[in-house]
Amino acid sequence: MKVSVIGAGAWGTALAVLLSQREHQVTLWGHDPNRLEEIRRTQFNESYLPGVPIPSRMRLEPKIQAALANCELAVIAVPSRAFREVTQALAGFQGIAVSVTKGIEKDTGLTMSGILAETAPHAKAGAMSGPTLAAEVARGIPAAIVAAAGDEETALEIQGAFHGPAFRVYTSTDLPGVEFGGALKNIIAIGAGVGDGLGLGDNTKAALMTRAIVEIRRLGVACGARAETFSGLSGLGDLAVTCFSRLSRNRQFGERIGRGERVADILASTVTVAEGYPTAQAAYELARTKGIETPIMEQVYAMLYEEKNVAQALQDLMQRDSKAEHWI
Amino acid sequence: MKVSVIGAGAWGTALAVLLSQREHQVTLWGHDPNRLEEIRRTQFNESYLPGVPIPSRMRLEPKIQAALANCELAVIAVPSRAFREVTQALAGFQGIAVSVTKGIEKDTGLTMSGILAETAPHAKAGAMSGPTLAAEVARGIPAAIVAAAGDEETALEIQGAFHGPAFRVYTSTDLPGVEFGGALKNIIAIGAGVGDGLGLGDNTKAALMTRAIVEIRRLGVACGARAETFSGLSGLGDLAVTCFSRLSRNRQFGERIGRGERVADILASTVTVAEGYPTAQAAYELARTKGIETPIMEQVYAMLYEEKNVAQALQDLMQRDSKAEHWI
Repeated sequence: MKVSVIGAGAWGTALAVLLSQREHQVTLWGHDPNRLEEIRRTQFNESYLPGVPIPSRMRLEPKIQAALANCELAVIAVPSRAFREVTQALAGFQGIAVSVTKGIEKDTGLTMSGILAETAPHAKAGAMSGPTLAAEVARGIPAAIVAAAGDEETALEIQGAFHGPAFRVYTSTDLPGVEFGGALKNIIAIGAGVGDGLGLGDNTKAALMTRAIVEIRRLGVACGARAETFSGLSGLGDLAVTCFSRLSRNRQFGERIGRGERVADILASTVTVAEGYPTAQAAYELARTKGIETPIMEQVYAMLYEEKNVAQALQDLMQRDSKAEHWI
Repeated sequence: MKVSVIGAGAWGTALAVLLSQREHQVTLWGHDPNRLEEIRRTQFNESYLPGVPIPSRMRLEPKIQAALANCELAVIAVPSRAFREVTQALAGFQGIAVSVTKGIEKDTGLTMSGILAETAPHAKAGAMSGPTLAAEVARGIPAAIVAAAGDEETALEIQGAFHGPAFRVYTSTDLPGVEFGGALKNIIAIGAGVGDGLGLGDNTKAALMTRAIVEIRRLGVACGARAETFSGLSGLGDLAVTCFSRLSRNRQFGERIGRGERVADILASTVTVAEGYPTAQAAYELARTKGIETPIMEQVYAMLYEEKNVAQALQDLMQRDSKAEHWI
């Protein structure tokens, strides 16, 4: 199969490496020609996925239209804020377009496959999401993920392209459920990281996570998702790994906030994107539009966008929580 | 309130310390008079809960009948294998007896409150369970837990005795649900630890956890629990912390197995009890009796009791898993 991975960050690169190990012809596109040139020269993507050799048979292509020519499967792995712009290039694309970006568009409340429906109207759109830290996947450590599309057939095609002994792909037709789980969990991971930065413990984090899946499910269902999807890999599974793993970027982002760093300084100092940051704003507005209560996401939003004091946010959350005596 | 904590291990001691910070008169009983004497002398329980000062107003009592005399609330925190024998002392007890032990009795399939119904027939029995690592609770790090009893009133009384700003107690009337969640998760934590010992990653663990909560729920429901309880603090929350926290004893136990140590050697070398070990056997028999499929628990059982090779267990689990294409 001719596969193009659009986006040469950590996740795009990891998936391109994985796809190269299957029977696919893989092209990797990145927006920065200098970086692609560096990958070609060193056979490593040292800034984004250090230590993982890039197979020499992988084609590196700086022109997106050239990357997409004759391609049957396009894997979109660009940051959510660039997603709409980049996928304009898929306007005439008729293959399968699968988003592996976890985010919600601020002005529209759309998930990434929702954007694809507008920018790539002739493509068969899907998404893939689950507990899959890029560094582990690139090293062949076992992981499981969900391939979702509105129709079963497309989901199975995506599964067929990616599935392997150490990268197990399951299918779902609940595309919004899979995407909202993946996007919203990043907000919670920032909150979990704040707790780490404050020196709170694993007990606290487990309580946060248990409450959080409830509000993720509530907001997701209001946006058309099926409730049960949030109890699966792409909901609960991804939430757990993002909250607990040292490797999670969103958790690390929150940890720096918890230690007292200013949000603007953290944003200025990191090359990789913590998707929870823009998603917190998009979800905040979506929850208000839909009239859904999301107490944890609201406090994270306030810390990120209203310079709310971290200790105050925690106190407000626990205060509010104390009114619910029966949530188990 | 006059409260007696029966069992001076890590969790019993941590709860006794916490209860001493409320308006309670607290007595701590332990089966070993020498250890109680050492606690009295040093004001620390260094073997089980190092670094946590024991308040001098806490009464230490080596005679269990004396510890229970005039007591209104008895908190049972002994290992599951000693639970039936120790609680014989509650034969005439008419107060509230709350188990904080997580286990299942092998020969009967009973949870700890099920044992209490036989050994302490005049008591109001309940259980308390959730993501609460003893070392964190003893240090006042925020945590949340579920107090469960067959009737709401008893659950509220337990909540009232323990609840505080950093130790938030929620109530449930699904006593089997709360207890099965707490007991069965220890088996999974051993499996998660095996993965750590083998050098598997957080992705693998998240996938394991997501599958595991399904089989925990299935077995629990077959034993009279309510399905939704397993999505709460005492199910999912406790499972997450036990699988991911460095501090979890059951996870540590599994990690040593994953690194190649023999089960018998690990058992011989540890003073604290990894409750997942006996629970794996009890759950294995319970699942067979009830005709419930528990693939993860079965593999853990085989590693623990049938000297099954760790790599083979992992392979068998993934093999079996590959047949289910839609579990998300």
